[in-house]
Formats: sequence, C-alpha cells, structure tokens
Amino acid sequence: MARHRHRVKVATLSERMELSAAEFKHLAVMRLNVGDRVDVFDGSGEAGEAELIHLDTFSAALRLLSRQDSAAEYPQPVTLAIALLKGDKLSDVVRAGTELGVSTFQLLRTRYADVPDIGDSKLTRLRRVAEEAAKQSQRAVVPGVLAPLPLSALSAAGQCFYAHPGSPGKLLEQVTWTSALTLISGPEGGFAPEDLAQLSRLGATPITLGPRILRAETAPLALLGALAASGV
Amino acid sequence: MARHRHRVKVATLSERMELSAAEFKHLAVMRLNVGDRVDVFDGSGEAGEAELIHLDTFSAALRLLSRQDSAAEYPQPVTLAIALLKGDKLSDVVRAGTELGVSTFQLLRTRYADVPDIGDSKLTRLRRVAEEAAKQSQRAVVPGVLAPLPLSALSAAGQCFYAHPGSPGKLLEQVTWTSALTLISGPEGGFAPEDLAQLSRLGATPITLGPRILRAETAPLALLGALAASGV
Repeated sequence: MARHRHRVKVATLSERMELSAAEFKHLAVMRLNVGDRVDVFDGSGEAGEAELIHLDTFSAALRLLSRQDSAAEYPQPVTLAIALLKGDKLSDVVRAGTELGVSTFQLLRTRYADVPDIGDSKLTRLRRVAEEAAKQSQRAVVPGVLAPLPLSALSAAGQCFYAHPGSPGKLLEQVTWTSALTLISGPEGGFAPEDLAQLSRLGATPITLGPRILRAETAPLALLGALAASGV
Repeated sequence: MARHRHRVKVATLSERMELSAAEFKHLAVMRLNVGDRVDVFDGSGEAGEAELIHLDTFSAALRLLSRQDSAAEYPQPVTLAIALLKGDKLSDVVRAGTELGVSTFQLLRTRYADVPDIGDSKLTRLRRVAEEAAKQSQRAVVPGVLAPLPLSALSAAGQCFYAHPGSPGKLLEQVTWTSALTLISGPEGGFAPEDLAQLSRLGATPITLGPRILRAETAPLALLGALAASGV
C-alpha cells in the first residue's frame, strides 16, 4: 500500500522553508538532489508540494509549489483514550491508530492497569512513533500523545464510546460525525466496576466488538478499523 | 478483557477425555487440582465444561459436564487470504485475526511480495500462534493456516472483497452473510496490475479503508475490526 514520493516535515508551510537538522539528515539519507520534488507537511494539518532548491553538506531549503487540502482526516477529531499497556503494546497501538486516523491519543490510568504510570522518555518515544506513522500514512496531522490522566479526569466532549463485552450498541449505527468523537479502550484486565461507573458518569455509550475476547491492544484497532471501513 | 477460567484443548469432546502430553504439561503449570472445572474445546467448533477427575505426575483426565453452542463464530466462515509479509508481521496478523474471528488464513504469493515463500517451520509457528490465540479469545474453533498459494490459484466461493485505495465500496454495506466470506489483503508494496486483473477475474469487490495509507499488517485488521464492530 506504499506510495513512493518522499515526505518531509517542516515547521510551517511558507514560500521558502529551511530544514531542521533532523529533516536535513533524513533528506541526505534519501539521496535527493536540487530540483527533486517532495511532499511537505507541518504536523497540524497543512500539506503541500515543494521543490528542493538548496542542498549542501550542512543545510537544505525547499520552495513551496502548491498547497493541498488535508483529505486524509475524519470530519471530526477522533480521540483514542487508552489505558496504559505493558511493553511495546502502546507503541503498536499508537502506530496503527495513527494510520487509522486518530487525532489525539489520551493515555489513561485505570483500576486494573497493566502498568501504573509511564515516564517522560516513553512518552517522547510514543510521540516519535506517531510522527513517523503520520508520515508513512500520508497524514498532514501528527496526532498528539497526551500524558496519562486518571479515567475520572477524562473530559469527553462530543460523542463518547467504549467497547464492553455483551453490549447491544454498534459503533457505526451510533456515530453521527456531528461532534468530536472519543473512543475509550481499557487495560488487559478490563474495566473495573469503578471504571464502569466513571464511564457511565461521562455519558459514554458501551458498544460491542462481537462475542470473542480481544486483547487490550486489538480492541482499539477494531474500533478504528470500523471507522476506516465506513469510508468517512 | 480477560476472563479467568482455564481453557483446555482436547482431541474430541467425550464423556472421559485423556489429555495429550502438551495439554497435560499446561494443566500442571496452571496448578489445577482434581475437582477443578475448566472449559474444553476441540478446535473445530465443539466446546463445553469439564471437571478434572484424574491427575498424577504422568497423566490427567477430564469428565465432560456440559456442551456449549459455539457462540463465538460468525454466521459464515471468514477466510483471510493474506500476502506473505516480512518478519513477525504474519504472526501478528494471525494472532489478532484469530481474536477477530477468522476461520481460515490462506497465505498468498503476490507479485510485489515482501518475501517469496515461507518454510514449514514458519508455517508450524503460525499454526501454534492461531491455536494460542483461539484459546485466549475463547473460540472453540482454531483457524487453519494454509500454505502459500499464488493469487491465481485462489478459489473464492461466496463473497470476496479486497481493500484498494480509492474504491467506493464499503465492506459493511456489501456483506450479506448469506455465503462464505473471503477478505484478500495485499503485500506492503500493494497489488500489482496483474494481481488486480486476477482479483477482477475472481469476482472480488474492491472496498475502501479510507483515504489514509495503511501498512500491510494494519489493513486486514481494519477489515476484520469492521466485521467485529458490526456485532454479528
């Protein structure tokens, strides 16, 4: 499913764009030459086409040729509020979730959390995963990854859903895209009774993912896959 | 999302069931005692509840208490025909795909395949992944993992779909569950023109997964997630 034009992140889309050290290094690795065209994006929704107009051993600059609409985004922002998971599972969810159009990842502390909290270095790593995945999936928006909150502190404006075994609700029958969307995904041990009470206070709607038991890292991708397959 | 009753695979559901060496070892690890109850399943759709009636250092036996309907399966078999992928990506797809209800994984050779073929040991490993995932997701059916075929040799009875960027079709609007379902998922490089011609000859319908570019291991999970979220 790859498309092979190079993508470069810039600070701001403008007539002339000097590249950051990291992006300059990336360009050098791609063996681009002056005159080559690349796609550019700024990580907050602006994207376009640019030409490499300057390249030496220390610096590089691009000239903006055209701007694009950001057609790769959902009509409303989609937040994935996800409980902390062990090992590389959060990275896997952030990577695939970015491909599947998440706008913001809000990490959550829940009663049965696999890990109590995560450090700053892990958070930085998750943000890097989101940036890389945004590039690869040709999104102009790099999703934010927000430091963990307790579920009780989550504010969910707009429509809010969580997957819970045995629920009658179906995600695609309920999503209206008239307001922001929050999908809440639990830890490996599931939501505790106090979490469920909290979800109810939030006004979150329980929905089904079928009769099978899903791992905590599979469930959010199933929810997001349903949105993606709806073609919105 | 875990439920904590132990699950044991047996050869056939019957009044008295002697355990295989592998399952016996598994039981010993679980520290079960005579009189404990476990869930049993035979890997082809039969499942039930059983009591441990015999356990010594060399052998164990169960007595069947009741049979269950296999409520965890889709109304029709779902085949995921998937192109060969590098590294552990196929294991990840088989694990999550099993949780998401796949009946059979048919490995595929395509024009732009990441790897040309896989060996018997890899195939054996994928089958073990499917068995483990079936247990964890409480399915009574262990999905088959079939050795690679060229796409031209795939026979797709029933409804057949593949994800292709820019397609207008939407999976859930087209699936009728009146016949078996085959979902075809391409390699990292996408389907080649000759693959697309082959898919057309098969009568496969292209469907959308939205405007973002998905990795080859994410796309099949998005398709299966859509089925799961439909609550069928």
